[in-house]
Amino acid sequence: MVAVDVGGTSIKAGVLGADGRLGPVDRTTTPPAGSDGAPVLDAVEAIVRRLSDGGRPAAVGVVVPGIVDDAAGVAVRAGNLSWRDVPLRDLLASRLGCPVAVGHDVRAGGLAEHRAGACRGARNAVFLPVGTGIAAALILDGRVFSGDGYAGEVGHVDVGHDLPCACGGHGCLEAIASAAAVARRYSAATGTPVAGSRDVAELVRRGDPAAVAVWDDALDALAYGLSLLTGVVAPSVVAIGGGMGESPELVLRPLAGRLAARLTFQRPPRLVGAELGDRAGCVGAGLLARELVA
Amino acid sequence: MVAVDVGGTSIKAGVLGADGRLGPVDRTTTPPAGSDGAPVLDAVEAIVRRLSDGGRPAAVGVVVPGIVDDAAGVAVRAGNLSWRDVPLRDLLASRLGCPVAVGHDVRAGGLAEHRAGACRGARNAVFLPVGTGIAAALILDGRVFSGDGYAGEVGHVDVGHDLPCACGGHGCLEAIASAAAVARRYSAATGTPVAGSRDVAELVRRGDPAAVAVWDDALDALAYGLSLLTGVVAPSVVAIGGGMGESPELVLRPLAGRLAARLTFQRPPRLVGAELGDRAGCVGAGLLARELVA
Repeated sequence: MVAVDVGGTSIKAGVLGADGRLGPVDRTTTPPAGSDGAPVLDAVEAIVRRLSDGGRPAAVGVVVPGIVDDAAGVAVRAGNLSWRDVPLRDLLASRLGCPVAVGHDVRAGGLAEHRAGACRGARNAVFLPVGTGIAAALILDGRVFSGDGYAGEVGHVDVGHDLPCACGGHGCLEAIASAAAVARRYSAATGTPVAGSRDVAELVRRGDPAAVAVWDDALDALAYGLSLLTGVVAPSVVAIGGGMGESPELVLRPLAGRLAARLTFQRPPRLVGAELGDRAGCVGAGLLARELVA
Repeated sequence: MVAVDVGGTSIKAGVLGADGRLGPVDRTTTPPAGSDGAPVLDAVEAIVRRLSDGGRPAAVGVVVPGIVDDAAGVAVRAGNLSWRDVPLRDLLASRLGCPVAVGHDVRAGGLAEHRAGACRGARNAVFLPVGTGIAAALILDGRVFSGDGYAGEVGHVDVGHDLPCACGGHGCLEAIASAAAVARRYSAATGTPVAGSRDVAELVRRGDPAAVAVWDDALDALAYGLSLLTGVVAPSVVAIGGGMGESPELVLRPLAGRLAARLTFQRPPRLVGAELGDRAGCVGAGLLARELVA
């Protein structure tokens, strides 16, 4: 199985072995976007051929961001990639001559965390990667729920602030609590550029007041978002992914406290760090490919 | 099949025929609550015996509010009935000598609206009765999703106001947008008691400014709640139940406009009135009973 995770900035790919483990991850820069997807399709084709040593893989799994119709294999809308209704599965299958599964990057990551990561064994769980954007994969009654491709968009629910969001709305969770928003807001508040949210986290550890303020805003908003997920779908476990999820003392513990303060009779989910890191989408892509030929 | 819907104020019951239609609905007042459920169990037993003409029904379905563990048949927590962990299914089965299905009133109503009402044919839908309280039944991938009994509590998500809620929280949707809240807030604002939200609706039709203000607050909050449901589970249809759902011009149309204003790339659900009225829970109870013996 060749597994490919197409992101807005990089394409990650690898080979999923029969044991369900992903081999070394090949990383390349995502080519400039085109609305028909051609430059990205060229890149994916080249990567798959390289990873297959010229042979034909049994199946290929490709995951992309945005709104994805998994059943039809169509990338309905992928913001960063400028795609609209690209029939990715059929285009790649005809180029590669093998079955291709197309899925959503975050839902595929959730599938991977459920099969082989932090959500293992949970009947109802959420995988919540906090990166450039925020979206959730919902595992409900043991299956990844897609909502016709539209479910899990918790990054764009209104959590009650007045900042604008790239989606065109206001008050979105993503606009205040994504890793990108944390870095951007710290830079804007202090005039000091930072490379990313990890730099802000380091400043929080050192007690930098502006970093603490930005971090607090992000945690409050994430707790709000988690309270909505808890009220609506009631996961027993939420696995936080992305750089922020890696820190128990800076993220998981304060988030659990703030979430508990927002709940009354609801069942508080256990908050844990995701386990598969930035390989989750790629592992999930491999699992989707394996389902095609199982 | 005998179907029973135990509410905080009344018990509705009827016989579900082989054609899936519910016969005349028998209504009695819910007896005073007891933590072991005994007075209510006595009442349910008497109703079932009366509706069975002294015979033994093939199966009985009973639905109750609160947190219900459908699989175990346990009423985990039913606020108005003061129940905690009442093993309703086993208690009733031993009294009645027939199989008993226990479910949640709103989820059972959602099942009924999906099988035979406003959500018919929808793969992903929400049934949202707006009554004394507010809770949602989620139909996801064609099945009612319970979240271990905790899903759909959209009445207690924070929609950004500062009013206290009976659950102990603040800002809950239910505290500003339930039929009870609308009536209570109008009475508080004007000093004029009203019997319920229908009276307030009538005043809105006549242009009463205080009624319009209370109604607007409720619609804004409901649109907020619907935007959260849309972002998280992406239903293609939302069936609004309760008295408020019956009015296209006062509820459905203004709600659709306010919801659209809150969405950007998300798929707006179609908003419709529920079709089964206050019989939905009872029809659902009958369907649950039928599944036991199918």
